Amino acid sequence: VSSKLPDATTSIFAVMSKLAHEEHAINLSQGYPDFPSSPELIELVNKAMKGGFNQYAPMPGIYPLREVISQKIEMLYGAKYDPESEITITAGATQAIFTIITALVQKDDEVIIFAPAYDCYDPTIRLNGGKTVEIELKAPDFRIDWQQVKDVISERTKMIIINTPHNPTGTVMAKEDMLKLQDLVRDTQIMILSDEVYEHLIYDGLEHQSIARFSGLAERSFLVASFGKTFHNTGWKMGYCAGPHALMKEFRKVHQFNVFSVNHPVQKALTDYLKQKENYLYLPGFFQAKRDLFLNAIKDSNFSFKPSSGTYFQLLDYGRISKEPDLELAKKWTRELKLASIPISPFYKQSTDNKVLRFCFAKSDETLLKGAAILNSIK
Amino acid sequence: VSSKLPDATTSIFAVMSKLAHEEHAINLSQGYPDFPSSPELIELVNKAMKGGFNQYAPMPGIYPLREVISQKIEMLYGAKYDPESEITITAGATQAIFTIITALVQKDDEVIIFAPAYDCYDPTIRLNGGKTVEIELKAPDFRIDWQQVKDVISERTKMIIINTPHNPTGTVMAKEDMLKLQDLVRDTQIMILSDEVYEHLIYDGLEHQSIARFSGLAERSFLVASFGKTFHNTGWKMGYCAGPHALMKEFRKVHQFNVFSVNHPVQKALTDYLKQKENYLYLPGFFQAKRDLFLNAIKDSNFSFKPSSGTYFQLLDYGRISKEPDLELAKKWTRELKLASIPISPFYKQSTDNKVLRFCFAKSDETLLKGAAILNSIK
Ligand SMILES: CSCCC(=O)C(=O)O
Ligand SMILES: CSCCC(=O)C(=O)O
Repeated sequence: VSSKLPDATTSIFAVMSKLAHEEHAINLSQGYPDFPSSPELIELVNKAMKGGFNQYAPMPGIYPLREVISQKIEMLYGAKYDPESEITITAGATQAIFTIITALVQKDDEVIIFAPAYDCYDPTIRLNGGKTVEIELKAPDFRIDWQQVKDVISERTKMIIINTPHNPTGTVMAKEDMLKLQDLVRDTQIMILSDEVYEHLIYDGLEHQSIARFSGLAERSFLVASFGKTFHNTGWKMGYCAGPHALMKEFRKVHQFNVFSVNHPVQKALTDYLKQKENYLYLPGFFQAKRDLFLNAIKDSNFSFKPSSGTYFQLLDYGRISKEPDLELAKKWTRELKLASIPISPFYKQSTDNKVLRFCFAKSDETLLKGAAILNSIK
Repeated sequence: VSSKLPDATTSIFAVMSKLAHEEHAINLSQGYPDFPSSPELIELVNKAMKGGFNQYAPMPGIYPLREVISQKIEMLYGAKYDPESEITITAGATQAIFTIITALVQKDDEVIIFAPAYDCYDPTIRLNGGKTVEIELKAPDFRIDWQQVKDVISERTKMIIINTPHNPTGTVMAKEDMLKLQDLVRDTQIMILSDEVYEHLIYDGLEHQSIARFSGLAERSFLVASFGKTFHNTGWKMGYCAGPHALMKEFRKVHQFNVFSVNHPVQKALTDYLKQKENYLYLPGFFQAKRDLFLNAIKDSNFSFKPSSGTYFQLLDYGRISKEPDLELAKKWTRELKLASIPISPFYKQSTDNKVLRFCFAKSDETLLKGAAILNSIK
């Protein structure tokens, strides 16, 4: 069999989740909560199924859900997206990202990404004949150097993928970042894919700089969001993307042949649940408390770190503890110490070993304290 | 925006479902039931959500479901698929088909399909730089002429897509068809994508000729199946594909970056439900009765037809009634007679107008009789 992705291995998230499960380890690896999803939301799904919403949803998603999303974006970010033609419900944010790249990136197009980066961007770009141009963010701040971006932009640059709050570093883009990006692309045809799945997980009073806030960017961008990350049910695989009509038209051409449409009862339930702002506005406080609990519990450990500003991930630098490569160490600690984390070298095109592991703090306080105790025991 | 699918329009299923809904028409268009899904199955999903199965399922699907699928295929078709490495759960059969083609079809590869064909095959092939070689099946039998297939096979033929029972014609492949296919590909590298989503909807005592039954084919094939079509919940978007390890490895490389994994509570529920054979073995009798009720009710109409042998679709020839193209007529009857159907010209690469419309009989007897009354009124 001739492979289109000869060097692709199993995604690090699948690898570590499987290992954590097999080893009965405290699982701070893949990004999902270990506490229950909302009973109210579960009951809404149950009601939708019993109410008969079990057949194909409309291809772009049910209209009422798209309408509530449109209202939410307008309320939070002051931008208008037409529910009819500018919002599509997807089988998770990953399916939105895959579909955007597949619909728009063509042979020899260049796409700029910032590493460490979620591991689906690069292979999807390559599958479509595109070329990934990777800019490495430098520890410990992991901020974008816009001059570097300017230097790599070429005639062939089709798209720039940004991600704020940023997985795995927890960095949050500032308003000035967005304005610089806006300046850079102004006289070009460059599109933006803005991966905002952690939009509600942002701490220390920072404000999420959604692409939707910047009209000079929004007009050429896809905004990608996740219900799984927001409502603690990553296993329901539900997200959406929003973008101007001309882009969304191309998106849907591919979406309809990829999945056609997505889970109907969940869409129905989310329509009601999303209407209540309090269902997501509590999230920054809730997860900031978890971050603080976790970091406070390991403050005397041998790890060094800079507190995460967003997402539910915390990077820990183990340079004072071990010289082992991060992938080997993550596996070893899962097996031997029964604590699973995510190595960040797979977030780079060329594996970069900067002695850092990622820990997910979307866990019960008990799990976090157990994890912290193990981390404290490592000398 | 430069389009990768400049000529793609909205899928005919999305178009007709939307129109039927807006017009409050009797909807015999897109393939889904209008009767309830099983209360027992719904309760199993509810139990799974309440039981906490709300986070990411493993990338290839939960193991117990893959195991039950493997047992089912072995029981029905006598073939062994390893649940660990040869079965993957997908967000519907369409996502399986899209992912198979994307993982395996490369630039300038040729893929043979049989028209009329489900409308996602050709655009997905073209998105991947492949070339669709379309063989037209001839009314009223719509059987494959294997000599014609032999004649179009070339050095570049990468894949042949078959579909039995066949949407939209209701034709069922015979054992001899499969043996001829097996002969044709024996000394080649050609892969088969076998779309078997209607495997349990087969009438008049015919036997489903799954690709899995033919070891000379199965070794080079993907089998695609659908829970939505089998258990009356097309809106849950759940299916699977099975294939030999070497092919499945390539499939999963793309699957993991397309959707990563699929709805967890539904997988959990299906694991239990699928164990009870009686949950699907009743289907041929159940749908054959619906087909017969429908066809008996229109036997004195002006339409001519050959009873469907499989799927829940019936083609009706309106040549004696109207000279209008099928797309226009389907829309007109939806608006004016409040009866929605599917035109079959979109199932061809080059729109072929053979004065035939497709009607879905997966409907309550009441709906079918109402639809039949409208059909009888057309002179
Ligand atoms: C399918 S994994 C999605 C991202 C995530 O959960 C992670 O980074 O851990
Ligand atoms: C997404 S539509 C899938 C096939 C079908 O239901 C139809 O042919 O009507």
